[in-house]
Amino acid sequence: MKEIHIGLIGTGYIGRTHAIAYAQAATVFPMKGKLVRDMVAEVSAELAAKQSKALGFRRFTDNWRELVADPNIDVVDICSPNFLHKEMALEAIKHGKHVYCEKPLALNSTDAKLMVEAAQKAGVKTLVGFNYVKNPTSQLAKEIISNGEIGEIIHFYGTHNEDYMADPLSPIHWHCFKDKAGLGALGDLAAHIINMAQYLVGDIQTVCADMEIVIKERPEKIGSSVMVAVENEDQAHAMVRFGGGAMGIIETSRVACGRKMGLSYIITGTKGTLSFTQERMAELKLYRHDEPANRQGFKTILIGPEHPDYAPFCNGTGHGIGFNDQKTVEIRDLLNGIASNKEIWPDFTEGWKVSRILDAIARSYKEQRWVNVTEIN
Amino acid sequence: MKEIHIGLIGTGYIGRTHAIAYAQAATVFPMKGKLVRDMVAEVSAELAAKQSKALGFRRFTDNWRELVADPNIDVVDICSPNFLHKEMALEAIKHGKHVYCEKPLALNSTDAKLMVEAAQKAGVKTLVGFNYVKNPTSQLAKEIISNGEIGEIIHFYGTHNEDYMADPLSPIHWHCFKDKAGLGALGDLAAHIINMAQYLVGDIQTVCADMEIVIKERPEKIGSSVMVAVENEDQAHAMVRFGGGAMGIIETSRVACGRKMGLSYIITGTKGTLSFTQERMAELKLYRHDEPANRQGFKTILIGPEHPDYAPFCNGTGHGIGFNDQKTVEIRDLLNGIASNKEIWPDFTEGWKVSRILDAIARSYKEQRWVNVTEIN
Amino acid sequence: MKEIHIGLIGTGYIGRTHAIAYAQAATVFPMKGKLVRDMVAEVSAELAAKQSKALGFRRFTDNWRELVADPNIDVVDICSPNFLHKEMALEAIKHGKHVYCEKPLALNSTDAKLMVEAAQKAGVKTLVGFNYVKNPTSQLAKEIISNGEIGEIIHFYGTHNEDYMADPLSPIHWHCFKDKAGLGALGDLAAHIINMAQYLVGDIQTVCADMEIVIKERPEKIGSSVMVAVENEDQAHAMVRFGGGAMGIIETSRVACGRKMGLSYIITGTKGTLSFTQERMAELKLYRHDEPANRQGFKTILIGPEHPDYAPFCNGTGHGIGFNDQKTVEIRDLLNGIASNKEIWPDFTEGWKVSRILDAIARSYKEQRWVNVTEIN
Amino acid sequence: MKEIHIGLIGTGYIGRTHAIAYAQAATVFPMKGKLVRDMVAEVSAELAAKQSKALGFRRFTDNWRELVADPNIDVVDICSPNFLHKEMALEAIKHGKHVYCEKPLALNSTDAKLMVEAAQKAGVKTLVGFNYVKNPTSQLAKEIISNGEIGEIIHFYGTHNEDYMADPLSPIHWHCFKDKAGLGALGDLAAHIINMAQYLVGDIQTVCADMEIVIKERPEKIGSSVMVAVENEDQAHAMVRFGGGAMGIIETSRVACGRKMGLSYIITGTKGTLSFTQERMAELKLYRHDEPANRQGFKTILIGPEHPDYAPFCNGTGHGIGFNDQKTVEIRDLLNGIASNKEIWPDFTEGWKVSRILDAIARSYKEQRWVNVTEIN
Repeated sequence: MKEIHIGLIGTGYIGRTHAIAYAQAATVFPMKGKLVRDMVAEVSAELAAKQSKALGFRRFTDNWRELVADPNIDVVDICSPNFLHKEMALEAIKHGKHVYCEKPLALNSTDAKLMVEAAQKAGVKTLVGFNYVKNPTSQLAKEIISNGEIGEIIHFYGTHNEDYMADPLSPIHWHCFKDKAGLGALGDLAAHIINMAQYLVGDIQTVCADMEIVIKERPEKIGSSVMVAVENEDQAHAMVRFGGGAMGIIETSRVACGRKMGLSYIITGTKGTLSFTQERMAELKLYRHDEPANRQGFKTILIGPEHPDYAPFCNGTGHGIGFNDQKTVEIRDLLNGIASNKEIWPDFTEGWKVSRILDAIARSYKEQRWVNVTEIN
Repeated sequence: MKEIHIGLIGTGYIGRTHAIAYAQAATVFPMKGKLVRDMVAEVSAELAAKQSKALGFRRFTDNWRELVADPNIDVVDICSPNFLHKEMALEAIKHGKHVYCEKPLALNSTDAKLMVEAAQKAGVKTLVGFNYVKNPTSQLAKEIISNGEIGEIIHFYGTHNEDYMADPLSPIHWHCFKDKAGLGALGDLAAHIINMAQYLVGDIQTVCADMEIVIKERPEKIGSSVMVAVENEDQAHAMVRFGGGAMGIIETSRVACGRKMGLSYIITGTKGTLSFTQERMAELKLYRHDEPANRQGFKTILIGPEHPDYAPFCNGTGHGIGFNDQKTVEIRDLLNGIASNKEIWPDFTEGWKVSRILDAIARSYKEQRWVNVTEIN
Repeated sequence: MKEIHIGLIGTGYIGRTHAIAYAQAATVFPMKGKLVRDMVAEVSAELAAKQSKALGFRRFTDNWRELVADPNIDVVDICSPNFLHKEMALEAIKHGKHVYCEKPLALNSTDAKLMVEAAQKAGVKTLVGFNYVKNPTSQLAKEIISNGEIGEIIHFYGTHNEDYMADPLSPIHWHCFKDKAGLGALGDLAAHIINMAQYLVGDIQTVCADMEIVIKERPEKIGSSVMVAVENEDQAHAMVRFGGGAMGIIETSRVACGRKMGLSYIITGTKGTLSFTQERMAELKLYRHDEPANRQGFKTILIGPEHPDYAPFCNGTGHGIGFNDQKTVEIRDLLNGIASNKEIWPDFTEGWKVSRILDAIARSYKEQRWVNVTEIN
Repeated sequence: MKEIHIGLIGTGYIGRTHAIAYAQAATVFPMKGKLVRDMVAEVSAELAAKQSKALGFRRFTDNWRELVADPNIDVVDICSPNFLHKEMALEAIKHGKHVYCEKPLALNSTDAKLMVEAAQKAGVKTLVGFNYVKNPTSQLAKEIISNGEIGEIIHFYGTHNEDYMADPLSPIHWHCFKDKAGLGALGDLAAHIINMAQYLVGDIQTVCADMEIVIKERPEKIGSSVMVAVENEDQAHAMVRFGGGAMGIIETSRVACGRKMGLSYIITGTKGTLSFTQERMAELKLYRHDEPANRQGFKTILIGPEHPDYAPFCNGTGHGIGFNDQKTVEIRDLLNGIASNKEIWPDFTEGWKVSRILDAIARSYKEQRWVNVTEIN
């Protein structure tokens, strides 16, 4: 079995979850390629050394350019801050590497498109880390919709709300700056629910949005009295229309008190409804209108081996899956796609589509009007 | 104690709940006036006779004009289809009667304003039957917000979704025609959540909306193959901005499978969040961000005698209140307002404000743009 | 239509809910007799006068013996403390009155049996106020079980837990004394869940129990440092076996922090399961094992006009019913039973059965062994 | 860092979850020893070969005796059917191996005690796979109780109900035979909730139980008409008393329709209550009675990095942990205990205590009386 060597750039919050998923992936799933945790790149040699050891990688570097150029690396996994995605991905592609990049793909749609084109030209595989669509529960939702069990979709209400910046004394960080993060809650969070909407309902075509910087300035660091301006939105929402005509709402916030992992959706069809929140990631609520009137109700389905991609983790229904298990499915898809030379989804094209919708939302707010996503590059 | 005589026009779905509430009101609440269920008007003498007896009224008529002109009647209670509200209310006001009218107040804002002006000129009391704001749980929410317990409101997400017309074979009825109902789900349902938004957050100032007739035509009657066009929206949603700057979403549908009494809200403040659904009308979820990070969470508060307007029903917490209990609080407010010559809320002015917002939503959709409610008469 | 005159003894917590239900009953339900709120008896003439007025009764007395002897009274409604039930009921029966008595029927099974025999001999109707079985949701549960939808019942877990005495500084009151209340949480609360078990599953045959006085003594009154011993159990539980062989657990507490109206059950059958809590009194959860494995789950059914005894309150599903609505159904049964000379349930015989089970539980604890309920008189 | 070599016996349902946890453990947690997945034993060489490869082990054997005798193996991990635990563990101990054994430790308390004594004599470390106590949520519950946040524990209601044998046509298997499994649902499931009770509340001292074989016989295999008798209980429950005096209920079933992972508890203290179900393994409900009466309620705490043992998996609150993550914590404890020569819990002594309680439950049922666990060897 062919070895597939991973080079991981960035080992913070999300890089760490990648590493855990790499560790367990081959034990959970039969794989077509042999995954090798090869090299870690971090900002200093010291940190790189420490993290490569902690996360089970063989080698390390304090220079990501070295990693992307290394002939033994097959996949470059980009877990750095958003503003670095483009440069790193283009460089990796230049060296013929497959690229696994965290969301949002780029600071804007124009950059994302460049990345798509580069990858297509180089013929490398790409994957964007929209992990929530890899949740078996999301796949069950997809199956139910595809089967027509809830009829034709007529409404989508989706959120990705969290409260990690709800405290006004929580200090400024790179997520708050346009040049580092691009958009605010939209780029960091809404990217996920938009990807989910596209997965479950189809392409979003038009948008009309509103947004707000709720906390206008934040301390330079914890306890500091020096205040720094926040440059991008804390919360936003948009009305959307899908290609198929369904109406939708997308809602996002990083200051939504009490929402800890508030990716949620209610999908209404002509024959039924699905309801989900990632805070209870192992359950899906299904309502079927064709049941007798006196026995109608939302049914809580606990995810189990009867459903897609769950059994390899545990053969007991309702026994529970976690955040990293989603990443493990994602990595399975990455490895198998590369080993079998098959399509991987969501790839850079989907990442670009999401960016385009995000940019359309931003423009809609700026111009206070409905925007067709095709107006954006 | 002065007697206050009620004349009830219409004894269908909602008229019946008024009657039940009249029956229990004086036993639940100490009242300043003595409520007398005096006269019922219905479309035929036979039905009027039957209903007056069933609902505990003394007299009946098949001519509502007789009722509104009757010198013994103090309050005209209008529970007829929407398109009759205006004519009946104006006639009642002309005879100097206080008017208690079901929502929506009128088919449009222009008519609603005429009604407001007539009532003001005549000096009569008015009340619109937005019962859900009378739920003790709504009053608890109001108390929490007014106390500043969740800080400054930054986001409102509110729905009134039901599925009473989700079945495409459910026949056409007056709610589907513009000349009988005015708007569709907006008038029938969204009126409630808009009133709730105004109660809890403040006046809505601008709106931007989308809507759809999902089921374009319906059978003339059950089982008929003759199809009749539906004239107004099955579902709609709007982005709004409140006077205070808070962002909001209003969502409504009469074809939202599984939502049986889906008036719900999530109100996000800078310090906490409230979450409610009328399907669990006796509980309110409260999140406070100032609790220690490892003890944060949404708390489910069961309504009880510790909260406003509950103890008169039952002295045990969590023992439960029902739909008609809301109407009972409403009637208590009506009677006391009349007997003490005090302000009643929500009066025709509030009913008109809601109509104005609904009309702004309709115009926004038509013109595909943000509309300020003051653009509407 | 024949008038049926009610004489109400006791107007505290529960007497008040009776009064509200009397007020609305005839408007909600078509009745075979005309209900007249005739006379109130209270401990002082002043209180009796005040309450008769507040609760809509015509006459009052400070002497309950006068009430039970009054020739115009048809039904004596006993809402006094437990220790008075027996004397009042026997006296009422002696005067040929129908008796509507709150639970528990008596301080012990022996007394309850005397009351049953007196009523049978006199040929009067009786009803015990186990209101929760009158909840339409309970009736839906009964229907589902009777239909065989969950198969043969194999397990019952039922609770009636509250926390009204959880605070150790909450002062002593009559519920804590054997001569006033008989048992503690068992008599006050478990009586309800036992009645529910008998309604839904069948007669309990054997019991084996444990119990505890958690707070051994309480202040004489609020703030007092004089402590008085608590004489009966704060919490208890028992294993039971039903006549049909099903196993069961009964659990009760008046010091169960957080349980405000914790009457709940999980009823497991060979083909499905029902789950309910009175804190969400308008919903019932149903699981059917015969659904496809990948679509199994508990379904939340919101009570509505499709279900028993709901439509007369409101014609909208999920619109909500309250505590007093249960009492209203109870009073409908009382009135119709009397007017039509038909069986009423739960009558004194059922009240005695519940008392017998409670006494068997107490004996089981005392003797630390399984007790057959037939060992009790 | 010292290598610790694992020998895994049995690679079915639970062996597989061990393997996944081994795979990710060192990436999640800093460890004091270097974990090596060394050898797998299975019933045939073919299966052993296949599984060693699939699960990432270096070597394999079809003879578990070879594995336990192998000088390179440090830890013998026993995931075989219950009846083999004793023989395998004793043999492993004889060879000086540390033993990690799945629950229940043995077919009965006598055997379990032999195993405890052998391990103590040999001075090896032991661990029993009661994984649910390793759930960070369980640890949060422990922390809350230890802090006194809910006061003194007065009641424990705990279940481990599942429905994996609810279908009467589900064929017989080794779990149903006394010589293979010992007890039925008690051994397979209740062992977990008893261990949890001991972890959170303290040692159980007396028990009084009831049980039933609900499905008396089952098909020999799927679709067969040959029926085989079930020898042990499908469901059981017991009243218990803890050493500290608290009352408790333990409930278990393998035929509890709809309960997929129904390990749950409600722990009532004098100042508050905790409520948990493993079906929502990442949340804990906490009620504090010392909050103001009008703000009391159960608070849903989502597990996060603020709580024990969660941050190493993911640094986002509410992002979710899964079944295998519990096993990962368990393995961390195993490795660190061995490497640092420190106490591991729950060890064989705890496993024996659980067995003793199970045997006391069985005897209580047989003799229909309360049994003190010290009556059992």
